[in-house]
Amino acid sequence: MTLPVLARSRRVRRTPFTERVTAAGVKAYTVYNHMLLPAVFRSVEEDCHHLKTAVQLWDVACERQIELRGPDAERLLQMTSPRDITRMKTDQCYYVPIVDVNGGMINDPIVLKLAADRFWVSIADSDLMYYYKGLAGGFGMDVLVFEPDISPLAIQGPKADILVERLFGQAIRETKFFRHKTIHFQGQDMVIARSGWSRQLGFEIYVDGAQHGLALWDHIMEAGEDLDIRAGCPNGIERIEAGLLSYGNDMTLENTPFEADLGKYVQLDAVPTCRAREALLQKQVPERQLRPVEMSGDPLPACTETWPLTCQGKPAGHIGSAAYSPDFKSNIGIAMVEAAYWDPGTTLVVQTPVGPRDVLVRAKYWI
Amino acid sequence: MTLPVLARSRRVRRTPFTERVTAAGVKAYTVYNHMLLPAVFRSVEEDCHHLKTAVQLWDVACERQIELRGPDAERLLQMTSPRDITRMKTDQCYYVPIVDVNGGMINDPIVLKLAADRFWVSIADSDLMYYYKGLAGGFGMDVLVFEPDISPLAIQGPKADILVERLFGQAIRETKFFRHKTIHFQGQDMVIARSGWSRQLGFEIYVDGAQHGLALWDHIMEAGEDLDIRAGCPNGIERIEAGLLSYGNDMTLENTPFEADLGKYVQLDAVPTCRAREALLQKQVPERQLRPVEMSGDPLPACTETWPLTCQGKPAGHIGSAAYSPDFKSNIGIAMVEAAYWDPGTTLVVQTPVGPRDVLVRAKYWI
Repeated sequence: MTLPVLARSRRVRRTPFTERVTAAGVKAYTVYNHMLLPAVFRSVEEDCHHLKTAVQLWDVACERQIELRGPDAERLLQMTSPRDITRMKTDQCYYVPIVDVNGGMINDPIVLKLAADRFWVSIADSDLMYYYKGLAGGFGMDVLVFEPDISPLAIQGPKADILVERLFGQAIRETKFFRHKTIHFQGQDMVIARSGWSRQLGFEIYVDGAQHGLALWDHIMEAGEDLDIRAGCPNGIERIEAGLLSYGNDMTLENTPFEADLGKYVQLDAVPTCRAREALLQKQVPERQLRPVEMSGDPLPACTETWPLTCQGKPAGHIGSAAYSPDFKSNIGIAMVEAAYWDPGTTLVVQTPVGPRDVLVRAKYWI
Repeated sequence: MTLPVLARSRRVRRTPFTERVTAAGVKAYTVYNHMLLPAVFRSVEEDCHHLKTAVQLWDVACERQIELRGPDAERLLQMTSPRDITRMKTDQCYYVPIVDVNGGMINDPIVLKLAADRFWVSIADSDLMYYYKGLAGGFGMDVLVFEPDISPLAIQGPKADILVERLFGQAIRETKFFRHKTIHFQGQDMVIARSGWSRQLGFEIYVDGAQHGLALWDHIMEAGEDLDIRAGCPNGIERIEAGLLSYGNDMTLENTPFEADLGKYVQLDAVPTCRAREALLQKQVPERQLRPVEMSGDPLPACTETWPLTCQGKPAGHIGSAAYSPDFKSNIGIAMVEAAYWDPGTTLVVQTPVGPRDVLVRAKYWI
């Protein structure tokens, strides 16, 4: 069966790197923040193996930045975050659950603090900017909320460090995890962070100005040629092996950060101004929570809708992400499991499009 | 060249009708409000011809509803709308530009008034719900803001009226344009409106409860068999011929309703509470505006990014949507044209991916 192609229009935005991604033979796209996000180059399995052994350049321009700038920037951000952001340093990145007043997750961005009154919120797939525009307007806050012309480009893989040292020097290579520094390219300062949506080593460059995109892409590709650098993308196998969550797949507005197993990023005693504080205080003991799960049998198809879990016929939750891992020779997944069934070692049954499979609740992710 | 397929995951949501859309042989999808929207079945041209001659069933579940319910529902809606909605009747639908405080367009939904304190905002492709959540929170308003389980299904084409009479009776057929009534299916009340994103005749059913989707789809298809009913979708040719705007393609947050040529939906004297009123008062004379345009030469490829317009080398705007119309034997488009060049009959030059073409600014759309 031929899979439907992605119909193209201006509304599904190209990125500054799309021309090179096309030339590299992208086979599948997804759409993320109204923008193209490459999903497959050779095959998900082959891309995964290469990511773990070499180095890849990822067009993740779809990680749009929402800039909050002004005297009330920190106040606005903290209103929506149960994580205490008041101690952030100006070279730090924080992973932050963002919630509505009920504690439902709206997004799970990386926040970059650039100055005391200036943040970039590097968003997952939802238009968080409008929430900030609404709140800032309603509370009469002194803050600018806008999407700057910033397009992240990720260098990921075990050889990322060597490559980044070659390109930008030893001091940049020595950037600590979730810290950011500044590089210069074509006369333009750009933020670079040690971060990225894989468990391999890596960096993300916040390309400042779309006009620099192709030149920087080419510059990196040339410098990495002998390292077997390839165009790549967030990998659907590796990110499940690593337990990296995907907003919209693993959790939605229906879920609290506690349900998403992000309790360590919730500091309710330290965030008196978080609008969800009261709601989250009531929901600290979740009724369900994300768990790594293994499914029996042959490789399963992609998980394009939630697959229901049961235990002896009783509802036990659902699986929201699944993939076959060649390295672990197993169907792996991330499941939202009801409290009665979430202990490691519990066995459940999942209904997949190709029939029922046995499911094992695991204690840990794979890598 | 093989076009990239759409990678599938739970995040790109299926609809209650996806199973039937797949069975009908959908060839291309786009993603709209994080949901699958069919884009092509046979070919854009063949789908267009069929839409104009028979009747089609469209899975437009991606037109998500944002329900505003409570004493402050109307107040919240009016804050974001330069169109006076206070005179709406409870069986009316309004096309409403929705703007931020600067007058930039956030969305261009159809608003359905269901009761004095209850509206559905049937959204174009942006997460408008978060704007309402933010404003409602910031202004401390007494209103619920949520996405109900409503999935629009459109019946479009010249034979839509005959089919709707067969299915739901003469009274429903006689629904006036942009009015809504109620039908009953499987014991469930559902809103039906005379509306839809084509210039052919048609209705939209607001399917209430995903569990009714497949049964209603089948019921309609069976009743329309002798009318040559087919699975269809919003058509990229017909909607340009008709001048039906597409948010994200034709206008964005960068544009005011005046620039989008939606001045007739702006009533600044009647909307003292609209937050954009002051900004829009300053922008009533736009510097650029949407215009229908014709491009010379052979059929052009799809417009996947803005194509720049010039007049004797000077910037004159851009084209955001384009298609080849078999019926008008011409490349047709919708352009944002600078004021100096927007008079009908003006000739410009557009830079397309296949080279420059002559452009004629038209006075009217085609149908």
